[in-house]
Amino acid sequence: MFQSFEVTARPQQGPPRLKALRTVLETEGLDGFLVPRADAHQGEYVAAHDERLAWLTGFTGSAGFCAALREVAGVFIDGRYRTQVKAQVAAEFTPVPWPEVSLGDWLKEQLPKGSIVGFDPWLHTPAQISQVETALEGTGITLRHCGNLVDQIWQDQPAPPMMPAKVHPLEFAGESHTDKCTRLGAELQTAGHAAAVITLPDSLCWLLNLRGADIPRNPIAHGFAVLHGSGAIDLFMEPSKLNGLEGHLGPNVTSHAPGDFLSFLERLDGPVRLEKTSVPVIVADVIGDRVQWGDDPCALPKACKNEAEIAGSAAAHLRDGAAVCELLAWLDDQVPGSLTETQVVSQLEGYRQRDNALQDISFETIAGTGPNGAIMHYRVTEETDAVLEDGHLIVLDSGGQYLDGTTDITRTVAIGTPPREAQEAFTRVLAGMIGMSRLRWPKGLAGRDIEMIGRLPLWMAGQDFDHGLGHGVGAYLSVHEGPQRLSKVSHVPLAPGMILSNEPGYYREGAFGIRIENLLVVQKAADLPGGDVHREMLDWRTLAYAPIDRRLILPDLLNTSARSWLNAYHAQVAEKIGPRLSQPAKLWLDAATAPI
Amino acid sequence: MFQSFEVTARPQQGPPRLKALRTVLETEGLDGFLVPRADAHQGEYVAAHDERLAWLTGFTGSAGFCAALREVAGVFIDGRYRTQVKAQVAAEFTPVPWPEVSLGDWLKEQLPKGSIVGFDPWLHTPAQISQVETALEGTGITLRHCGNLVDQIWQDQPAPPMMPAKVHPLEFAGESHTDKCTRLGAELQTAGHAAAVITLPDSLCWLLNLRGADIPRNPIAHGFAVLHGSGAIDLFMEPSKLNGLEGHLGPNVTSHAPGDFLSFLERLDGPVRLEKTSVPVIVADVIGDRVQWGDDPCALPKACKNEAEIAGSAAAHLRDGAAVCELLAWLDDQVPGSLTETQVVSQLEGYRQRDNALQDISFETIAGTGPNGAIMHYRVTEETDAVLEDGHLIVLDSGGQYLDGTTDITRTVAIGTPPREAQEAFTRVLAGMIGMSRLRWPKGLAGRDIEMIGRLPLWMAGQDFDHGLGHGVGAYLSVHEGPQRLSKVSHVPLAPGMILSNEPGYYREGAFGIRIENLLVVQKAADLPGGDVHREMLDWRTLAYAPIDRRLILPDLLNTSARSWLNAYHAQVAEKIGPRLSQPAKLWLDAATAPI
Repeated sequence: MFQSFEVTARPQQGPPRLKALRTVLETEGLDGFLVPRADAHQGEYVAAHDERLAWLTGFTGSAGFCAALREVAGVFIDGRYRTQVKAQVAAEFTPVPWPEVSLGDWLKEQLPKGSIVGFDPWLHTPAQISQVETALEGTGITLRHCGNLVDQIWQDQPAPPMMPAKVHPLEFAGESHTDKCTRLGAELQTAGHAAAVITLPDSLCWLLNLRGADIPRNPIAHGFAVLHGSGAIDLFMEPSKLNGLEGHLGPNVTSHAPGDFLSFLERLDGPVRLEKTSVPVIVADVIGDRVQWGDDPCALPKACKNEAEIAGSAAAHLRDGAAVCELLAWLDDQVPGSLTETQVVSQLEGYRQRDNALQDISFETIAGTGPNGAIMHYRVTEETDAVLEDGHLIVLDSGGQYLDGTTDITRTVAIGTPPREAQEAFTRVLAGMIGMSRLRWPKGLAGRDIEMIGRLPLWMAGQDFDHGLGHGVGAYLSVHEGPQRLSKVSHVPLAPGMILSNEPGYYREGAFGIRIENLLVVQKAADLPGGDVHREMLDWRTLAYAPIDRRLILPDLLNTSARSWLNAYHAQVAEKIGPRLSQPAKLWLDAATAPI
Repeated sequence: MFQSFEVTARPQQGPPRLKALRTVLETEGLDGFLVPRADAHQGEYVAAHDERLAWLTGFTGSAGFCAALREVAGVFIDGRYRTQVKAQVAAEFTPVPWPEVSLGDWLKEQLPKGSIVGFDPWLHTPAQISQVETALEGTGITLRHCGNLVDQIWQDQPAPPMMPAKVHPLEFAGESHTDKCTRLGAELQTAGHAAAVITLPDSLCWLLNLRGADIPRNPIAHGFAVLHGSGAIDLFMEPSKLNGLEGHLGPNVTSHAPGDFLSFLERLDGPVRLEKTSVPVIVADVIGDRVQWGDDPCALPKACKNEAEIAGSAAAHLRDGAAVCELLAWLDDQVPGSLTETQVVSQLEGYRQRDNALQDISFETIAGTGPNGAIMHYRVTEETDAVLEDGHLIVLDSGGQYLDGTTDITRTVAIGTPPREAQEAFTRVLAGMIGMSRLRWPKGLAGRDIEMIGRLPLWMAGQDFDHGLGHGVGAYLSVHEGPQRLSKVSHVPLAPGMILSNEPGYYREGAFGIRIENLLVVQKAADLPGGDVHREMLDWRTLAYAPIDRRLILPDLLNTSARSWLNAYHAQVAEKIGPRLSQPAKLWLDAATAPI
């Protein structure tokens, strides 16, 4: 079982640790220290070794940071975590609404002129630090590099992860790492850059066709690399992780001890491309005036999956869809009031484990029944575990990591007899999800130019939801991958091969939540008779197959095109997933996919 | 008759004038001179006195500029004018595709190190000049202020406009100019600015409740003003324009001779707010280090019309709609092949003139029949005037200036029997227009967040159009008003009272054009039962009433909601416009607005 329901942090752990940290502040002559959630690779998940924020404060959300000053300790959290933070941190910590209140403005309020706030230059990016420094201009408050003060006081800190890396086979990668390096090196040369520093582990793993197990949920290996214009790579990763991989890496990749990274960078010829929003400050400082700010050269090529990656993702989705259908069939067979959320999560993971292809779940399954479904980032624990009652809707958002692809799928299911207002909202969410799935659009547009189509039916009823419509997804990599997004803030043009989630929702606080999510891949749209001859259009291919709960659909609220789409989709679900199911689940599927 | 079909510029006029200009370049020791389309107020229309670009080059488009160097003269034009420029300028001028080729890059290619290019600092903005200067950094090519060299050689240059200004009555303005000045002055104080310089004439006229006749199509008076934090105004306008207006202006407004403007600015206490994209360079230079860049303080308040302005616009639209309906009824009564475009334009202006309320047309009527309809910014002249043939569609895009409001409406009408593919495209354009008209959306969104809804039905058929969905419109002011727009580039949140056009189209080169346009005003949406309680939503109120050609609609391509909207709209047209029509037009209207 990958998922645990343990409560991993307690409010009472924080105060003595904060006290210890303040003693070190005094010794170091500092007035504060910044404790981010991130590690040196700025990913969404971090290893136990890097769980400094949770260890110090008790707060376990996936984003946030603490500014621990001598008198006050601010825990900065965004809108998703306003409730959670109150339950997780002791009164010695002050929750700060972020980004409404910026770190710079908060420090200005809290600190006198002349104060010095320390930070670990491996854990922050130049974009973050320069934003704070700009806000502090003229205040006499300064930021200063220092060692990691939390590591100094954390006696039983787990060791950094040292899991062996493994080869990601060409069958799934679709392009050799030598070809990738040569191709991207040539692009660096065209841009006039001698080299680029790669610090994001999913970029590194994608580039070298490696996968690893250094952190939960994401199959990545920690390390740094320098990509040269020639296509040669200098790799800085613990040698023990690379045992037996010399043959795969080949002559193009030179391995170094991680400890040599900075001195290597000192000697590197410029200009060197760094990404301002992900590189550690210390790397930028060492590169100095050789820096050319730019995009991570792997970001866009990684986002645009090739044929092998798309085929792999499609295959993974069929296996994953079968597990989801087994779960949905089993769930429908239970009596309302007889199950709790954790039982559903365990049962689902069991189905995913059954064919031994699952490497990990791709994130902590969200299983929120009734009012818990309205908590957008709900993670069930032993303490919150709720019973699935008659009249509830349960939101099930889950995914798997397979060697051939990463999945992420949400279905919302009626427990017993659903309330009418939930059916109305569900049908609107579905109409939005179908509207996006059916969409064709002119090439060149970004997520923000089309995102509204997934909200339109809700808007027309005076409703909406407060999260983006979708995020990028990797190929046996991170389930949240940039730069592609279906979001009002995403200006990166959508391009063929990009995999994105399409997940409209609706949340009525204290009552119910709804979300329906399929992964889609962008493709060149087929020409239509009468269509503009010189206008390139894109559309979606759906990757995910599992039935959408017909008991929650009010067919009269769907227009003809949406009904046709749904019936055609359900016919595909029956055809593709049916043969993979147990006999009882197959019978259930036939009924669940009947036309409306 | 306001509109003329005269060809106002000829290619052969350009070369001798260019030659004369080059002689002056030599005398002045310059290697080039910039000739913009704009006047000192950066408006879309300019007075005859300021038609320097057309006079020098022959090009009469509404945007563009000439960089006249000693050896080459580039005429920079955007995508709308690529064809027109070829017909209008002689071979001595080189059309340059702009903004694809920037002025700075072009100058770098054309000029050696040490070259000096002159420009008139009244006719360019700091944003324009600093962009060019950034591109020229390190090249040794410089820009230099100078007098206007075109004015030096233009012997019979018309005098600057000197038309009397008039009061815009409180009945239509809805707020006294004293109240506006006090309100906006207080906002300047809040922003920490001592004053703002107003150089845009529609801002100035809106602020002082004045209208004028200094340029065609826009009822504005040229002048400059300084708004102080106290709400006091210093006004720099030719005294002859203000004869008899002393009582209206009152003690809050101090009039000065225009020639005193710069010396007044020299003595003004800072910080002074200037808008970088509209203020003349010379004003920014005089203000120097007292400059605070910011928005024109009038822009947003002017865009958000008050109740009186909305009521005025609605009333103007009813009169204007009656004129349009008379024209459409008359047009349907003519035999295909018997009319030309100019006859339609004249007839339409005649109907608009009939009740003596028309002050001007709000722009040159676009009347494009058959293939001419596919030219988006077509202006009919004696030379292009085409016959309305059987099977044509004619695009009629026109509007009026009335004391109570500005109108802009487009209808596309079938001449004889329309081709099926035109009906299909028309129905999709209509579906997009209705989709936007029916839309509700959460407060806070900008034009770019919702614009796609007007394109969606075309996209689904592999089609699209290459202009924005809509522009802001003034209240008896400019027919193109910012900052509100329905466009992918517009990030200004839509707010109640903003008037915008909703004008999707479709253009098949060499065959036909389609555009359907109504003006709409943003309003707070009524609450819906079951809607989110804490979510403010906005929607539209339609201002324009005229039938949409039922012969071009394929009802099966419209969904039920769109058909209901259309039938309800047509019922409103019959009810609101019918009583204003002649008997034959009324009979025609009853048939034209019958349900589909």
